[in-house]
Amino acid sequence: YKIALLPGDGIGPEIIPQAVRVLQAVGEKYNRQFALQTALIGGAAYDATGHPLPEETLAVCRNSDAVLLGAVGGPKWDNLAPELRPERGALLPLRKKLGLYANLRPAVVNPALATASTLKEDIVAGLDILIIRELTGGLYFGQKHRQDLPGGGQKAVETLEYTTHEVARVARLGFEMARRRRKKLTSVDKANVLESSRLWREVVESLAGEYPDVELSHMYVDNCAMQLVRNPKQFDVLITENMFGDILTDLASQLTGSIGMLPSASLGGEVALYEPIHGSAPDIAGQNLANPIATILSAAMMLRISFGLEDEAAAVERAVNKVLQQGYRTGDIMQPGKTRLGTVEMTDAV
Amino acid sequence: YKIALLPGDGIGPEIIPQAVRVLQAVGEKYNRQFALQTALIGGAAYDATGHPLPEETLAVCRNSDAVLLGAVGGPKWDNLAPELRPERGALLPLRKKLGLYANLRPAVVNPALATASTLKEDIVAGLDILIIRELTGGLYFGQKHRQDLPGGGQKAVETLEYTTHEVARVARLGFEMARRRRKKLTSVDKANVLESSRLWREVVESLAGEYPDVELSHMYVDNCAMQLVRNPKQFDVLITENMFGDILTDLASQLTGSIGMLPSASLGGEVALYEPIHGSAPDIAGQNLANPIATILSAAMMLRISFGLEDEAAAVERAVNKVLQQGYRTGDIMQPGKTRLGTVEMTDAV
Ligand SMILES: CC(C)[C@H](C(=O)O)[C@@H](O)C(=O)O
Ligand SMILES: CC(C)[C@H](C(=O)O)[C@@H](O)C(=O)O
Repeated sequence: YKIALLPGDGIGPEIIPQAVRVLQAVGEKYNRQFALQTALIGGAAYDATGHPLPEETLAVCRNSDAVLLGAVGGPKWDNLAPELRPERGALLPLRKKLGLYANLRPAVVNPALATASTLKEDIVAGLDILIIRELTGGLYFGQKHRQDLPGGGQKAVETLEYTTHEVARVARLGFEMARRRRKKLTSVDKANVLESSRLWREVVESLAGEYPDVELSHMYVDNCAMQLVRNPKQFDVLITENMFGDILTDLASQLTGSIGMLPSASLGGEVALYEPIHGSAPDIAGQNLANPIATILSAAMMLRISFGLEDEAAAVERAVNKVLQQGYRTGDIMQPGKTRLGTVEMTDAV
Repeated sequence: YKIALLPGDGIGPEIIPQAVRVLQAVGEKYNRQFALQTALIGGAAYDATGHPLPEETLAVCRNSDAVLLGAVGGPKWDNLAPELRPERGALLPLRKKLGLYANLRPAVVNPALATASTLKEDIVAGLDILIIRELTGGLYFGQKHRQDLPGGGQKAVETLEYTTHEVARVARLGFEMARRRRKKLTSVDKANVLESSRLWREVVESLAGEYPDVELSHMYVDNCAMQLVRNPKQFDVLITENMFGDILTDLASQLTGSIGMLPSASLGGEVALYEPIHGSAPDIAGQNLANPIATILSAAMMLRISFGLEDEAAAVERAVNKVLQQGYRTGDIMQPGKTRLGTVEMTDAV
């Protein structure tokens, strides 16, 4: 199994090697070979090559069976021109060029951490929802334009575009995923205001007949943000467009109270990409403080989704759960009476 | 003081008369005269006149010193053409035509109801934040377009537009409001992706020098959705564009656990509009079940902001707090050991 490793910036170069150690342990135990190739991305790539997404990095990704990404960005590169910044210059083009149109972000509350949320325990205990965010369309990839106005001042204009095809492929994935879970799909839009949402809703609706076993409902995005706080357990799988998904997935991950635990997968192209949900956390970088679990669980998702190695994936997830049950914690999820570990020591335990 | 009353649909025609009773009590006690004129809006207007926002209703509003709106919409009108539906045919054009570019939505946790939230009490007790949403720009009022694609399927395109002027006027209001409160202003955008957000941030930044007493910060909208759940008390005043504001204000109101309590004001034109944050709740309409307090508090906002009647506004707010302290509740905020009242009886108590 060929894996491209993109550590990136901040804590990225600390957590990726930890996931690699877990993969090596899996390889030994189950007799699997992982061929790893590391490439530069983000600020690290800009510093080394002058561009945040070098062609060589894309080539390494395309030449792999899966990509494992750490995180990109940091204050050091915030004042570069937009197209050279880690986010707009690397992350977004990487998604687009690899054709990763669906971002899967599970929000799962680990039983050992049900009290870590700012929400009441009965509201979030047992939470297990999956948000699928469209990742290569909408405002993120629309036309962007700035003009001077005759009377002074400026005007910014950008476009939000979606096609039937773009909606249908991510909607199908939503139906498929719901089918493998609790068979409930909630499509989130703003069809009372947006034309793209009306198209979105029509396309999703038109596919429902092919998935009679899945219960489909539609919800406005403002209401969805409320419902995620009021009663998140009403949901199973949610699908939504890129910008709404950006907001709702971050909101949902915060419900769990432990964003350092949450993995994600981006699918759709020839090669899938896996990454922790959290960012590059420059403030704690290089201090052995970062929680490696989100990256380790991202590697588990890779084993399951890209390589079909279900036993191996489940073994990693069991190991993480056991370590948490045994009371080991990194700083971000520390609780009274538990044992605090650093990045490397947490990985040792797993 | 000339007030236009727009009851609208669902529970609207039940709660508006309750706010009127409170205004009458204020008028008697403080010797103020309120001249009330009622007009049709939403589904009710469509049913009576064939249009959800009759010209006569606009004239009544323009001829008043303030507008008090109930709520619009309901399943009965959901299948009309978009431009005839209560939301796109009445609410949005009303905002635009009256020039109401700023929507003020306070999220305040009433001390008597701090346990009503799904968030832990220590996270929300004492919460008092104000979100100011830009209300007449962005995707809501952009161009909307649908086209057939040569290879089959369709494409929807719409535009997100903002000008310096549009951003500056709502930003100024944010600075002014922060100045009267805890002097912290958070401007929410997605400047790492959107051109309109980059303009937004530049304009807000350019005004900061005029308000040296206000501490300005910027936050990405996805992070803001997280932070509102993680630690909402870090905020004082927030400003954001229309669509982000739609999502974040609903999220914030849910933090209080009692959306039936929350008023709002829309400002910017010659005449301001006040309305409860909640919707038309067709499921409980006509049963004396609706909580009238959000509408009563909207009337209090009107007394303060449009008429400068601070004592009168404070008296209404004190009355509401006292009634809650005495243990009176409508169904939506009912708690064990409290006394349940209907819409009319709750207003009697206030
Ligand atoms: C960094 C940013 C461009 C990115 C996004 O908005 O997609 C991030 O928030 C994410 O969710 O992966
Ligand atoms: C009904 C809808 C068009 C409206 C909006 O999106 O502005 C509502 O959600 C609101 O927040 O007032």
